[in-house]
Amino acid sequence: MSDKPIRRIGIIGTGVIGASWTALYLAKGLKVVATDVAPNAEAALRKFVEKAWPALERLGLSPGASQSNLWFTPALAQAVANADLIQENGPERIDFKQKLYGELDQMLSPDVIVASSSSGLTMSEIQKGAASHPERCVIAHPFNPPHLIPLVEIVGGAKTSEETIRRAAEFYTSIGQKTVRLNKEMPGHVANRLQGALAREVYYLVAEGVVSAADVDTALSWGPGLRWGIMGNMMLNHLGGGPGGIEHFFQQFTGPMTAWWKTLGSPVLSPEVQKKLIDSVHAEVGSRTIADLEAERDEVLLGLLELRKKAQQAAAPHTVAAE
Amino acid sequence: MSDKPIRRIGIIGTGVIGASWTALYLAKGLKVVATDVAPNAEAALRKFVEKAWPALERLGLSPGASQSNLWFTPALAQAVANADLIQENGPERIDFKQKLYGELDQMLSPDVIVASSSSGLTMSEIQKGAASHPERCVIAHPFNPPHLIPLVEIVGGAKTSEETIRRAAEFYTSIGQKTVRLNKEMPGHVANRLQGALAREVYYLVAEGVVSAADVDTALSWGPGLRWGIMGNMMLNHLGGGPGGIEHFFQQFTGPMTAWWKTLGSPVLSPEVQKKLIDSVHAEVGSRTIADLEAERDEVLLGLLELRKKAQQAAAPHTVAAE
Repeated sequence: MSDKPIRRIGIIGTGVIGASWTALYLAKGLKVVATDVAPNAEAALRKFVEKAWPALERLGLSPGASQSNLWFTPALAQAVANADLIQENGPERIDFKQKLYGELDQMLSPDVIVASSSSGLTMSEIQKGAASHPERCVIAHPFNPPHLIPLVEIVGGAKTSEETIRRAAEFYTSIGQKTVRLNKEMPGHVANRLQGALAREVYYLVAEGVVSAADVDTALSWGPGLRWGIMGNMMLNHLGGGPGGIEHFFQQFTGPMTAWWKTLGSPVLSPEVQKKLIDSVHAEVGSRTIADLEAERDEVLLGLLELRKKAQQAAAPHTVAAE
Repeated sequence: MSDKPIRRIGIIGTGVIGASWTALYLAKGLKVVATDVAPNAEAALRKFVEKAWPALERLGLSPGASQSNLWFTPALAQAVANADLIQENGPERIDFKQKLYGELDQMLSPDVIVASSSSGLTMSEIQKGAASHPERCVIAHPFNPPHLIPLVEIVGGAKTSEETIRRAAEFYTSIGQKTVRLNKEMPGHVANRLQGALAREVYYLVAEGVVSAADVDTALSWGPGLRWGIMGNMMLNHLGGGPGGIEHFFQQFTGPMTAWWKTLGSPVLSPEVQKKLIDSVHAEVGSRTIADLEAERDEVLLGLLELRKKAQQAAAPHTVAAE
């Protein structure tokens, strides 16, 4: 494999994830050729990108960034020709993906990375479809929507090469995303597992009538959640230990924490439980529209991303300046 | 019970939590009389308040706010005389608290609220010490440190009156805190349970070697964590369902989410596992000091709190203006 620069991205599948990737890549000054078989896919994609553009401008466009660097074709072979990296966002069905990876295996030069956004399938299974070059196939799972949320989870399958993982991590880092490396394939990777672990207890407490949806949301978003967009759990534990750091944290909190673990809930999402949760959410939402709430969420999110960027520059001015 | 305004707070115990409550109350223009039996307690308390003051100024002082509204006495009876509300932050031992609540029961006029910061004990147990007036005793559990994090979890014991719960909720809300009401006593209340549920999976993934501490922290703080300081899980699920809202969310995600639940870990925090976690945190921290990391955390936190305040004012200008 070469280390040739990644300048042109082939996007397969332009649903919510593929469209958001497209917007991000264009904002980073890359060229994008997208493909999708759905009727009206091109118009929907261009509309998504246009709508996302003001936020991307606010976060900072790279030199050469332009919506006019987007091409669309319904023909797969045309979309992937001359691409340096493929971002694949096809349906989450193993038979579909294996067939697709077989076709890509024939079409692409061996130094082209095939990165899958799959959240539910493993690369070890998917790459079985790629007879000649499974080594260049890797999971690069975003957290939706990737044009706003920087996380990319990178994990190879049994036949993925270390070089592919390294090149993929370097590429996503170079455009400002934050990559994590999974050393083992795990259902849900990392972020969805963390989200699932938290949601399970949230649903339990609402289902049991301990708190309303509004109150559990207050507890999270005005409590521990305030810090989880600033630092991760492990670093916060280190600070939670005071001058004694993480060692003191475990000395002090292992007892109560493991006692609480024993009482965490395992709710079953039966239709009745779902109805209770849904009713409680509607009581919380009241007359506010989804569009209003989305706008509020994204406005604060953009502000938080700006704060994080500033904090990083303050902490390591030379590193960030050199990026 | 009267609805007389709460202007003077008695603080029992001036460790980390009691000192932070003290700083908050002073910033809100209240008068505080604090007591603690530890040697040097007064000097440590005044130093804490002085150090916290710039952040409190930035968040906005209330009319009359002053560090000179703080009095200290080692004598319990003197500290609680004429207080309108007691914030109790004593040691987390049931025998100690029951004895203390017995003494307070004798000393206080019946319309004084006794609010405990306890995270590990239930009010039903604690208030057994208060023979005459258990009804005015309530848990008002902050999320540390209360002068920066607005959450207060309110939960009564078997003998707590509804009026006490209402008055306590109104009081904390009136000084800008965000209260949640628990309808049942639960170990760890809500926020610590949510934190525990998340930490359990974090420790599992690091202990199993799936990711490093640095990577799991990236996954949280550049992924789902970015939103948890903006909105809670239930509201985010509502938006995650697209135009179909929370109903569509459950239709779409119940399958994969419950499948992930089955694979979540139950780590045992043995000395070996703790060592692995601790070593991984030190690799993440590198040469950065705890003071530097705390400063970074709190700088972004203050910025985020300002963003949230602005978003609330934009969403409901009249409500917030009337606060």
